[in-house]
Amino acid sequence: MSNPNDPIVVWHQQAVSRDDRAQLNNHRGCVVWFTGLSGCGKSTVANLVDRKLYERGVRSYVLDGDNVRHGLNATPQMLAERYDEQFGARFGLGFSQQDREENIRRVGAVAGLLCDAGLVTLTAFVSPFRADRDSVRASLPAGDFFEVFVDASLEVCESRDPKGLYKKARAGEIAHFTGISSPYEPPEQAELVLDANDLSPEELADLVIQKLIETGKIR
Amino acid sequence: MSNPNDPIVVWHQQAVSRDDRAQLNNHRGCVVWFTGLSGCGKSTVANLVDRKLYERGVRSYVLDGDNVRHGLNATPQMLAERYDEQFGARFGLGFSQQDREENIRRVGAVAGLLCDAGLVTLTAFVSPFRADRDSVRASLPAGDFFEVFVDASLEVCESRDPKGLYKKARAGEIAHFTGISSPYEPPEQAELVLDANDLSPEELADLVIQKLIETGKIR
Repeated sequence: MSNPNDPIVVWHQQAVSRDDRAQLNNHRGCVVWFTGLSGCGKSTVANLVDRKLYERGVRSYVLDGDNVRHGLNATPQMLAERYDEQFGARFGLGFSQQDREENIRRVGAVAGLLCDAGLVTLTAFVSPFRADRDSVRASLPAGDFFEVFVDASLEVCESRDPKGLYKKARAGEIAHFTGISSPYEPPEQAELVLDANDLSPEELADLVIQKLIETGKIR
Repeated sequence: MSNPNDPIVVWHQQAVSRDDRAQLNNHRGCVVWFTGLSGCGKSTVANLVDRKLYERGVRSYVLDGDNVRHGLNATPQMLAERYDEQFGARFGLGFSQQDREENIRRVGAVAGLLCDAGLVTLTAFVSPFRADRDSVRASLPAGDFFEVFVDASLEVCESRDPKGLYKKARAGEIAHFTGISSPYEPPEQAELVLDANDLSPEELADLVIQKLIETGKIR
């Protein structure tokens, strides 16, 4: 360990710390975890918050099904094209209980990396199970996890049904569909609860920004 | 689609583009993919580059075994504590050919997200197989993948052996060890080849910075 070229020694001397990154960005990284039924507006609100943060000069990023399910957490079918059926099935993630759990675990791990890199990381996944969300919370430094419950009733979500998923779930074409054939466990101590039955996405996004300012996450 | 509150419409109007992020940061995101034998200095050089970029005001981040193998790509043993043996074995990644391939695939997917978020993303993995690295390259927008071959001889790497892995591999305690019992396929068209037999990590890091400036990735 006395050799100045020793990789381990050099690493520790030179690493960029979270404090360094916070100084460069003028804010710290954190994870804003949106949770709620399909169609409640998570992705819409997260993207509006992303835009509003951008306009304030805050570095942020949205993780949602669009950019995760086609890459990192691809389905068994997608990965079978790359590997073979056996390994596609092993590495790919479907929609069983364990697969959804692993989906959220991986998203949590990536959100943790983005947070460590200094970004205000906005995640938009149904993430219906309390234990899974609590595991992500526990994996992050205290105070870095910001749980936002986008609270819209099943009736409101089903009437919107932007992707036609409720219709398919009611017809029995989608198994384990949250709210229909699989439970949603609302947060018990969310940092923020958004009334998505009555307020517009714009208004909800403003409430998130306000909360981030109040809690000192951004200026 | 005519309702202004429609989630899909709002999303497309409001999303922050890569150009937007590049304008805020004064540089675009890209992936600088370090590859080479264990002990060649990938992680050391990547962390030095990270530090040098930070000092230039460039947003960057290092992905390496330290922050990926304990979270996103945890081993079967680590995940068996969380799930059970069956699902730990399914979701965890060991060191077989397919598991290493999937390890690199996931790292490539995460690097792609960090790149999309605007960061100069530095990855430090042995990544011995050409096909795996080429898959990551193909998954990114043209020109965003920057392959850096950290070229040190097996003799040099084995004499350093910072983690004692070569000793274990020679003793037969580690299977599929690159350079000993598993091949390393050097890049055929790397954007940069670093002579890690003769130059110091400092000098190699400076060459990476120089290349990033020459190719217009940073200023």
